[in-house]
Amino acid sequence: MAQRRTIAVVGLGSMGKGMAGSLLRAGHTVFGIDLDERAARDFVAAGGAPGDAGERAEEIDILVLVVLNDVQTEAVLFGPGGWADRLRPGAAVVSCATMAPDFARSLAERCLAKGLHYLDAPISGGARKSAEGKLSVMASGSPDAFALAAPVLEACAETVFNLGDAPGSGSAMKAVNQLLAGVHIAAMAEAMTFAINQGIAPEQVLDVIPKCAGTSWMFENRAPHVVEGDYTPRSSVNIWPKDLGIVLDIARKSGFGAPLTAAALQQFLAASGSGLGAEDDAAVAKVYARNAGIRLPGDPA
Amino acid sequence: MAQRRTIAVVGLGSMGKGMAGSLLRAGHTVFGIDLDERAARDFVAAGGAPGDAGERAEEIDILVLVVLNDVQTEAVLFGPGGWADRLRPGAAVVSCATMAPDFARSLAERCLAKGLHYLDAPISGGARKSAEGKLSVMASGSPDAFALAAPVLEACAETVFNLGDAPGSGSAMKAVNQLLAGVHIAAMAEAMTFAINQGIAPEQVLDVIPKCAGTSWMFENRAPHVVEGDYTPRSSVNIWPKDLGIVLDIARKSGFGAPLTAAALQQFLAASGSGLGAEDDAAVAKVYARNAGIRLPGDPA
Repeated sequence: MAQRRTIAVVGLGSMGKGMAGSLLRAGHTVFGIDLDERAARDFVAAGGAPGDAGERAEEIDILVLVVLNDVQTEAVLFGPGGWADRLRPGAAVVSCATMAPDFARSLAERCLAKGLHYLDAPISGGARKSAEGKLSVMASGSPDAFALAAPVLEACAETVFNLGDAPGSGSAMKAVNQLLAGVHIAAMAEAMTFAINQGIAPEQVLDVIPKCAGTSWMFENRAPHVVEGDYTPRSSVNIWPKDLGIVLDIARKSGFGAPLTAAALQQFLAASGSGLGAEDDAAVAKVYARNAGIRLPGDPA
Repeated sequence: MAQRRTIAVVGLGSMGKGMAGSLLRAGHTVFGIDLDERAARDFVAAGGAPGDAGERAEEIDILVLVVLNDVQTEAVLFGPGGWADRLRPGAAVVSCATMAPDFARSLAERCLAKGLHYLDAPISGGARKSAEGKLSVMASGSPDAFALAAPVLEACAETVFNLGDAPGSGSAMKAVNQLLAGVHIAAMAEAMTFAINQGIAPEQVLDVIPKCAGTSWMFENRAPHVVEGDYTPRSSVNIWPKDLGIVLDIARKSGFGAPLTAAALQQFLAASGSGLGAEDDAAVAKVYARNAGIRLPGDPA
């Protein structure tokens, strides 16, 4: 196996927890850091390094940030007591949150000013793939950043897209993927409810569309949730107001109009605003169903 | 081979010509009918039955309608000199145009009143698949209609979805597929141009997205046209104002709001309205590029 590294993972939510576990399995010394003390304790019980990572910051080779967004990423690095001042020069920062490319570039520059190598490394694949060490990573950064971050990429990712040496390119590609993924989930919901409205059984749609030009990865993955009436969150509605909001923020700053993304965002906002935020993102179909007065599978008769 | 039938194909455009050719190859006697006399003459030269099909209407077992829309379909059947009064009772009508399910149902009823068996049979797959006899057909109709139309389905289709015995279900499923396909093409264009706007090379998007959750059949099929700057029409922009218009007409009549479809339609209308109607439908990317002031591959420097 690769050389044993000392790694700190900040953010032990569904994605960070899976990555931290993959790093443990690969034999590294892994600190798990989370504001939720129970999540941090559970990780120590699962084999994580005990004690205060902050007091051993000099030992840390790689800091992996799997927090919610740009604001949290900046706070962890440059806020009061931030890690950018505690890591030793030459350490690597692997940043996994979805954020604007410009912001990723500025974080990379500020890190480099402190001698830290920043890998812009948004992740894709969901909680299960994270737990299995099979994420997709859309990565960009200097050759040094890639080399230093290699143990993390090897342990956590099935596919690493090397998008070049400019930080921000990884974040930009992640935004492109989220644009498509979010629009396709909303389109799935629009199509399934339209079909039901026209008297077609949803099982029939699921049988036909995957063999036709109208199919998408998201259709094939999410439409079964609607057909089964099962909205147990594999990936929740609340991801999308955030991620499509990021896409539209980037777009607006660049003078780029994105009407389909904007339409999809409205549907996810309606889902979230009406109390469906914690359900599976396929529950955006409930917004369509409600507006059209139709029943979905699993609805009471 | 199946029993030799006498079949008339009305509409020798890119889809109808392919179907008529497939029927010839299967050994049937095939009349090709088109307002464009040259198309009709070319088909006779290719082996089509010569002479006036109208004078031999009693011999025709199956009338296949591959015209543009509902209005043309109705005119061919029930307009002055229409085929519904010329075919012998017991003949079959196979209707392939995309139209509203309600309209398909009413045509089926009017045909049945004259003793004709109507198969609601919208087709999918494009000109190439039509020429190869490998269309997908979304079919619904009575068992008699299916049985009588079997030689056409066998010769022209790779996949036949049997959507039950109610005419209109085939048209409804076709509308569901077109909703998704149209939205996904516009989403491809939105994503590709957004990526270019963010400084990502379009080839890189085409390399990454098909391996990610953001992919779709249309992305993988149409994004290469943008990357290559090749807008030779495989399927043209002008299809989409028509087909998404049909979807939205159906939706509005049913009190169903379809915001993503509506947004996609606007983009295709802008493409069509600005002179791109005859180009490949991937040219909807040019609308985005123009609005954002960016260059697409193939644009002059």
